[in-house]
Amino acid sequence: MKVALFGAGRIGKVHAASIQSDPRSELVAVMDAVPGAAEALAAHYGIAATSAEAIFADAEIDAILIASSTNTHADLLQAGAAAGKAIFCEKPIDLDLARAREVMSVTNGHDKPVMMGFNRRFDPNFASLKAALDGGEIGKGELLAVTSYDPAPPPVEYIKVSGGLYRDMMIHDFDMCAHLFGMPTSVMAHGACLVDPAIGEAGDIDTAVVTLTYADGRLATIRNSRRATFGYDQRVEVLGSGGMLAAENVRENTIVKATDAGVVSAKPVHFFLERYMRAYEIEWAGFVDAVVAGKPVPASVQDGVNALALAEAANMSLAEGRPVEITAALTWA
Amino acid sequence: MKVALFGAGRIGKVHAASIQSDPRSELVAVMDAVPGAAEALAAHYGIAATSAEAIFADAEIDAILIASSTNTHADLLQAGAAAGKAIFCEKPIDLDLARAREVMSVTNGHDKPVMMGFNRRFDPNFASLKAALDGGEIGKGELLAVTSYDPAPPPVEYIKVSGGLYRDMMIHDFDMCAHLFGMPTSVMAHGACLVDPAIGEAGDIDTAVVTLTYADGRLATIRNSRRATFGYDQRVEVLGSGGMLAAENVRENTIVKATDAGVVSAKPVHFFLERYMRAYEIEWAGFVDAVVAGKPVPASVQDGVNALALAEAANMSLAEGRPVEITAALTWA
Amino acid sequence: MKVALFGAGRIGKVHAASIQSDPRSELVAVMDAVPGAAEALAAHYGIAATSAEAIFADAEIDAILIASSTNTHADLLQAGAAAGKAIFCEKPIDLDLARAREVMSVTNGHDKPVMMGFNRRFDPNFASLKAALDGGEIGKGELLAVTSYDPAPPPVEYIKVSGGLYRDMMIHDFDMCAHLFGMPTSVMAHGACLVDPAIGEAGDIDTAVVTLTYADGRLATIRNSRRATFGYDQRVEVLGSGGMLAAENVRENTIVKATDAGVVSAKPVHFFLERYMRAYEIEWAGFVDAVVAGKPVPASVQDGVNALALAEAANMSLAEGRPVEITAALTWA
Amino acid sequence: MKVALFGAGRIGKVHAASIQSDPRSELVAVMDAVPGAAEALAAHYGIAATSAEAIFADAEIDAILIASSTNTHADLLQAGAAAGKAIFCEKPIDLDLARAREVMSVTNGHDKPVMMGFNRRFDPNFASLKAALDGGEIGKGELLAVTSYDPAPPPVEYIKVSGGLYRDMMIHDFDMCAHLFGMPTSVMAHGACLVDPAIGEAGDIDTAVVTLTYADGRLATIRNSRRATFGYDQRVEVLGSGGMLAAENVRENTIVKATDAGVVSAKPVHFFLERYMRAYEIEWAGFVDAVVAGKPVPASVQDGVNALALAEAANMSLAEGRPVEITAALTWA
Repeated sequence: MKVALFGAGRIGKVHAASIQSDPRSELVAVMDAVPGAAEALAAHYGIAATSAEAIFADAEIDAILIASSTNTHADLLQAGAAAGKAIFCEKPIDLDLARAREVMSVTNGHDKPVMMGFNRRFDPNFASLKAALDGGEIGKGELLAVTSYDPAPPPVEYIKVSGGLYRDMMIHDFDMCAHLFGMPTSVMAHGACLVDPAIGEAGDIDTAVVTLTYADGRLATIRNSRRATFGYDQRVEVLGSGGMLAAENVRENTIVKATDAGVVSAKPVHFFLERYMRAYEIEWAGFVDAVVAGKPVPASVQDGVNALALAEAANMSLAEGRPVEITAALTWA
Repeated sequence: MKVALFGAGRIGKVHAASIQSDPRSELVAVMDAVPGAAEALAAHYGIAATSAEAIFADAEIDAILIASSTNTHADLLQAGAAAGKAIFCEKPIDLDLARAREVMSVTNGHDKPVMMGFNRRFDPNFASLKAALDGGEIGKGELLAVTSYDPAPPPVEYIKVSGGLYRDMMIHDFDMCAHLFGMPTSVMAHGACLVDPAIGEAGDIDTAVVTLTYADGRLATIRNSRRATFGYDQRVEVLGSGGMLAAENVRENTIVKATDAGVVSAKPVHFFLERYMRAYEIEWAGFVDAVVAGKPVPASVQDGVNALALAEAANMSLAEGRPVEITAALTWA
Repeated sequence: MKVALFGAGRIGKVHAASIQSDPRSELVAVMDAVPGAAEALAAHYGIAATSAEAIFADAEIDAILIASSTNTHADLLQAGAAAGKAIFCEKPIDLDLARAREVMSVTNGHDKPVMMGFNRRFDPNFASLKAALDGGEIGKGELLAVTSYDPAPPPVEYIKVSGGLYRDMMIHDFDMCAHLFGMPTSVMAHGACLVDPAIGEAGDIDTAVVTLTYADGRLATIRNSRRATFGYDQRVEVLGSGGMLAAENVRENTIVKATDAGVVSAKPVHFFLERYMRAYEIEWAGFVDAVVAGKPVPASVQDGVNALALAEAANMSLAEGRPVEITAALTWA
Repeated sequence: MKVALFGAGRIGKVHAASIQSDPRSELVAVMDAVPGAAEALAAHYGIAATSAEAIFADAEIDAILIASSTNTHADLLQAGAAAGKAIFCEKPIDLDLARAREVMSVTNGHDKPVMMGFNRRFDPNFASLKAALDGGEIGKGELLAVTSYDPAPPPVEYIKVSGGLYRDMMIHDFDMCAHLFGMPTSVMAHGACLVDPAIGEAGDIDTAVVTLTYADGRLATIRNSRRATFGYDQRVEVLGSGGMLAAENVRENTIVKATDAGVVSAKPVHFFLERYMRAYEIEWAGFVDAVVAGKPVPASVQDGVNALALAEAANMSLAEGRPVEITAALTWA
């Protein structure tokens, strides 16, 4: 399976490595809007830097991987579908829900796999938790709590174009809730700017709590902060009718040091690429499975629209200070 | 310091033991509405079972401890104040906020210590967490998460007279939030009946999430369930500007067993009296400190009114599906 | 059951409290060689300080508890047996194995319970481990590892009269091995003075490793140090044919603090009285069970001789640099 | 740097992947005595299966990696040195100490790096522990405890040619002790056959405890078992003058499941290749650093001789039932 990569930045490089490490896929072309970026990555793999046009025109290319900036995703998804390519696209589809639904109406008619890169679904820990939950090991899930704290906020320049905390950061957690519990019926969002006033001046929040309610009474809560001085804190906990499941943090190492100052263990791994490196590999293998073995994609465009709909509802809830209902109209084109 | 006890039930017995184990206090009388109950406990300590009237009339009695049923608390508080006694009263003051404020207007004019029995404040683990937070060990607290799951629901007959989950169970967690973060400005409550339909038929919920927002942007969430098959789950976690503090569960023992079935640790202690036994002793010592050494009471009638106001706001929020503001008018007489 | 206490020092006070907290036993007399010590403790309980002669002559006294200095144990055991008392004696019987066996030949003919105070057997954690091991939860035990590190060495003056590390400190661990695995067939001891040269000058060691071998091939190792700056480290681990059991340390509290300096948990409790407070109560209840209900004593004089024999073998092994066999002749009078 | 690989079995494949994943090294040839094995691995990498003679004759080949069966190591080390190659050799040099010393006398005169594959030194956890110990974080190390339990014994056919537990399995732990504490002055070995009688019939043991003593009084203990039903148990713990360091097991995942059966965590990873996968990569990078950047090899032939000398001493100690001294004559050619 021959793959062309859009985007040669940090996450593009991670995906390039995954493509090459899976014996069934091969990176054959790379494109990036930043001059020189594609060339550098292409040189590393002994392949060609090229243009979007050339990629879409090349019948040898089976699949495209979209890891370019967010504002290019929707166009590339549509163009890729028009060109008959299988498509793997980093989240989100777009910052605008209506635009995302428009894309979905196109990809729904596409006969090749289209997959969204919700990497956390593929983390072996969260995947184990889901398997245990789905396997009934704690009975029926009732109360879900997702905790995601970043070590430090991104630059304010990034915040300004990010679409805001709910669409940029919590979207992963919305997807995790949807992945574990399905789509909720309402969203209640709270948020504040506590970490950096410049984030507030940019119109965003950096600390947030969201509660999701489900038709059958189940509840989910999400906690986000842009600052956790001890590392990248990524946990999921589910209370069920027969017990509780928790996915704890991955630590830097297994060392425990006991001195008169206390008993010190290692911190959570600090960097999202380190935390989710294995997830990126498994994620890619899932896409290859869909393309070469006809398996269903493990994260669909619908999943991308769903997460975006929850983020949009959260924005509305925060603005209006009330719970916002999730209706089918929001999530279906 | 001579103490009379109202209520010779389960919690009354715990307090009787605390009174006797503190060398500064002595149990001299006990009263209970259930025939024989006071007599049995009195016999155990070689003292007299007596009547409320006799207790209030006895000038030798310095303090009363109210551990009788909830519907007697308000009257006993008022009568105790009128009789000039120092008063320790189990939570809540009353199920009705207006009645509680009425009691407070009386006790505010009383010149002896009046203390509410919010036992969790005195748990050595939660107390350590508060000391570390107040000591600035994680900078400024920003996001508080309180988890309280009971092993199993009480009988439905109890549920019916309990005042509902927010006033009966979550009131401890409201107090914990107020203890750690102060009074919030709004309460948003979610809840469902997932554990036992009979609880829903009695008009109550058994699973709940509440979010508190603070004037300065801080946030607190509380999760409650009436069922945790693995034990009594009582945790507090605070994210701050400089790190995170968590008070984990107390386990039954320190044994770890590794077999091909996994690595098994002991469960949280199952019973609230076992979990908080040490807290009850420390709590009582705090009251004695107030009476004999003039120290401030570590949990005041105002604290009791505050927790009740939060519970009442939660009930309103759940009923109306919207955040409810906490105003000074709610909490001050 | 009326009890007289020999020894009003630190450990005597602990036992006095246990005697009083068990409703079946009552402290009626106390004796101590240090002027004033018995009087102070007696006053606290409103009883009489008295003499050994008076205690042995008092037919009302059912049992004696020997918590006086080690060099008085053997004589008091013999005198107590002669006076027809049930006897609880702190370890060791004596520092001299021959003398201990002599005492045993006397107490073997005594018709009242005689129990040795090996407190660690009664620690709820170690007791749970033993129950799980005996219950076959990890198959057959094969490899036992006992770790005992004291926070800091005792004064050198104490070291000089202590009988040496093996008889003073590791004797608890010898008993734990005998309790869990029975009596070994050989002892190989290693030791060094690493903590304080003054201990070496006093002819003792402060760091030690001992390996016990059993007739059926099982192995046990003991690690001791007189210094663990992080607290009182008391662990037991058993590998069995079907898994592993470990009794971990008891921590000061359940707080976990995560900052950029790491994830810090509480230290093991620092003081042996805090660590084993509950064990002392359970231990006493075991003795009362033996006296009033005719149950077997949970730690016998034979157990005391056994532990002492292992310590003596360790001293010989260290001196001669070779494994020392444990023969029946060593442990039987 | 062009590398030829001897041995295309399980461990050879792991090394082949490390060679290819380091951008500075390239696998160019592979040789194996088993017909077809070299061809299969060579085909996977698009290179040539070849003979030992061809490898030694090829001046383009900079380095050889010896991952063939133990009985070929010594000859290949000598031949590699004679051919002027840099050499990476799996442990052990040989099962015979005299032969290993003979090899060392040859490689000592060789001017290219020669490195022994003691993979555990490169495990990030053990490496962190060593860094903390060497950095004085717990003062001076005093008491070292190494625990290594395999999930299950190898086939008895392997046991028969393995050189015995001390040379085959505990050799890693001897190296870890030497790595952390240096060479001891004496070895006392205990061992038994508890897991499988067939191992005993083959003249070997499957359960062992060894104690090492050091000139300055430090002590080290090693525990080995060929059976740990819960997984691959690999721990190191050091007590020092200022605290304690422990490297705990790597777990399969971070899931914690709490039910009425207890609180279950994941087991240690089961397979040594999974446990030490990262170590193999880092180990290889250390060899490349030595070859291309002139850094010292992080595990030398002397280290290989040292570990073998300790194993030989352990065999003698077990046979004769006494501590065996380690003299310079044992470890130096």
